[in-house]
Amino acid sequence: MLQEMLQQISPLDSAAMETARQHWDAIAKPLHSLGRLEDLVVQLAGITGTANLPPRKKAVLIFCADNGVVAEGVTQTTQAVTAAVTRNFTMGIASVNALSRVCGADVFPVDIGVAEELHCDGIISRKIAAGTRNFAHEPAMTREQAERAILTGIALVGEKVAAGYNLIITGEMGIGNTTTSSAVFSVLQQLPPEQVTGRGAGLSGAGLRHKVEVIAKAIALHQPDRNDVLDVLSKVGGLDICGMAGAFLGGAVYHVPVLIDGFISAVAANCAVRLVPLCRQYLFASHCSREPAGKLALEALGLRAYLDCDMCLGEGTGGVIGAKLFDFALAAYGEIAGFDAVGIAPYEKLQ
Amino acid sequence: MLQEMLQQISPLDSAAMETARQHWDAIAKPLHSLGRLEDLVVQLAGITGTANLPPRKKAVLIFCADNGVVAEGVTQTTQAVTAAVTRNFTMGIASVNALSRVCGADVFPVDIGVAEELHCDGIISRKIAAGTRNFAHEPAMTREQAERAILTGIALVGEKVAAGYNLIITGEMGIGNTTTSSAVFSVLQQLPPEQVTGRGAGLSGAGLRHKVEVIAKAIALHQPDRNDVLDVLSKVGGLDICGMAGAFLGGAVYHVPVLIDGFISAVAANCAVRLVPLCRQYLFASHCSREPAGKLALEALGLRAYLDCDMCLGEGTGGVIGAKLFDFALAAYGEIAGFDAVGIAPYEKLQ
Repeated sequence: MLQEMLQQISPLDSAAMETARQHWDAIAKPLHSLGRLEDLVVQLAGITGTANLPPRKKAVLIFCADNGVVAEGVTQTTQAVTAAVTRNFTMGIASVNALSRVCGADVFPVDIGVAEELHCDGIISRKIAAGTRNFAHEPAMTREQAERAILTGIALVGEKVAAGYNLIITGEMGIGNTTTSSAVFSVLQQLPPEQVTGRGAGLSGAGLRHKVEVIAKAIALHQPDRNDVLDVLSKVGGLDICGMAGAFLGGAVYHVPVLIDGFISAVAANCAVRLVPLCRQYLFASHCSREPAGKLALEALGLRAYLDCDMCLGEGTGGVIGAKLFDFALAAYGEIAGFDAVGIAPYEKLQ
Repeated sequence: MLQEMLQQISPLDSAAMETARQHWDAIAKPLHSLGRLEDLVVQLAGITGTANLPPRKKAVLIFCADNGVVAEGVTQTTQAVTAAVTRNFTMGIASVNALSRVCGADVFPVDIGVAEELHCDGIISRKIAAGTRNFAHEPAMTREQAERAILTGIALVGEKVAAGYNLIITGEMGIGNTTTSSAVFSVLQQLPPEQVTGRGAGLSGAGLRHKVEVIAKAIALHQPDRNDVLDVLSKVGGLDICGMAGAFLGGAVYHVPVLIDGFISAVAANCAVRLVPLCRQYLFASHCSREPAGKLALEALGLRAYLDCDMCLGEGTGGVIGAKLFDFALAAYGEIAGFDAVGIAPYEKLQ
């Protein structure tokens, strides 16, 4: 089922990209002077298969899930905060809501594995489990659960595309999910846990040392196979990471761009790209997280962030700010006059 | 007259900054997790003297001027392009217009020294001279003209503040103004012209070598005194650079934040900060220009850009995109619920 989905993923449309490049060169400004904004639009043409690119309709998919490993004391707050913030998303009072209003993006919280039962309108209910198991003692989830969570992420992108959205922003909420992300990234990149683990929402030095130890012991216990992403995700991952990995793959399946948010999101993107390397071409890195491995996670993807803001909040907050660059780039692409219209001779191309 | 103006500049209001910091810490999110967006708001509180910060009303001041040194063949296009693009600003069809509509900023082109007479509504006419002289042979302008151009920039900020604007974005248009900027920056930083000179709007390798030579010869001819900014500006500068330096100083005089755009703008900011070091606290670096000395010019200011987009268009295009971060930061600051409202215990501060 997952394999069938992933086989649909194809490379970008190079003819549409060339048409977009020619349009940029006919606009009255020095050649490539809008730099990466021009590249963004060219890539978008490749993703969507057309150089005719109106403004994007933006959806933030926030994957919310709990992590059993929180029982090991790797976080400052309790698991109840996951449910509380997930509810806040529906009330428009969380961080991502405020930023999304400025961006013009619609926020969709998804319960893919929150421990509590959430009886609350406005949450997309796709619970795979009521939180994962504590990977300090047993695998976080079954392989089948990981696969189902990925398929859920893919399907959600399909649903949003059917509803008219054509830019997806990824976000997450889940106490303990920097622990799971560092564990997954440590295995995938064969980097020691101390190099890829940070203070999350605010651990002390002692708390950080304990978190690193919990991760290292779990990896030693489960021996995840770094060449088998589903094995890694099911043993030391989280349902939010699986869902986001699915959203990235969904972008490639349904031909819409997907924005990476911070560290957790970038780890999920690494999982998606390991499953289908072509998926990378459908991704955009919004900002570089302040988490110690935020930069490493983007480097592993070969992607460069647009924003340098030292953020580490999650929820899709960086992704939502990055998404505004699509509005800027597409306005420039669509609205600046051409050389012919303004009576200025075009710039010469250098060889 | 200029000295009197500059003596009014005072440090930021530390009490307002502390109040803003406390407000951030009471918002339901991990401490300082919005990173530099939080710092931006704290700085804004210090600039304006209040922690009560509604959304900004944004003005782009585009200083348009011609440069006599264009006669030396240091550019790909002719001087007529300065007037043509300046007119385009009033018609809403230039690059900065498209981006300003997305940002929600109003565009004000200022003729501070365009060679042509511009009979055109919508241009603020403050012409100091019909272009500068060719600094390959004589000083670009008199010391008095440089001073008047700086005062013009200060006064324009005052006028916009009186009209209700409280965020100023700097921009420029002037064929030849990467040549003047590189010359000024070379002198100020005692860096060889070849290290701080780039291809501008699209010079070939031979064109670039010629541009470097013209700059080096002019510096040798005029021997500008690097400790006397007005001497440097009048000998090898431009009226646009002087006007922008004035706008930065005007931000500090009238207590409004001013955004630096690209390389030319950052060189003008360096001039302003040399005149009054306190002025730096009123400035924000939007993006890092692709011009070779773009990064150096920000480093010399001790400022870090928010955006990494490889842009080098000018007109205020990067500044306008950076200005949107104020909307994001202030929405977060003003709209996210507090810990008390959402029933989540505050995060503990680490020692």
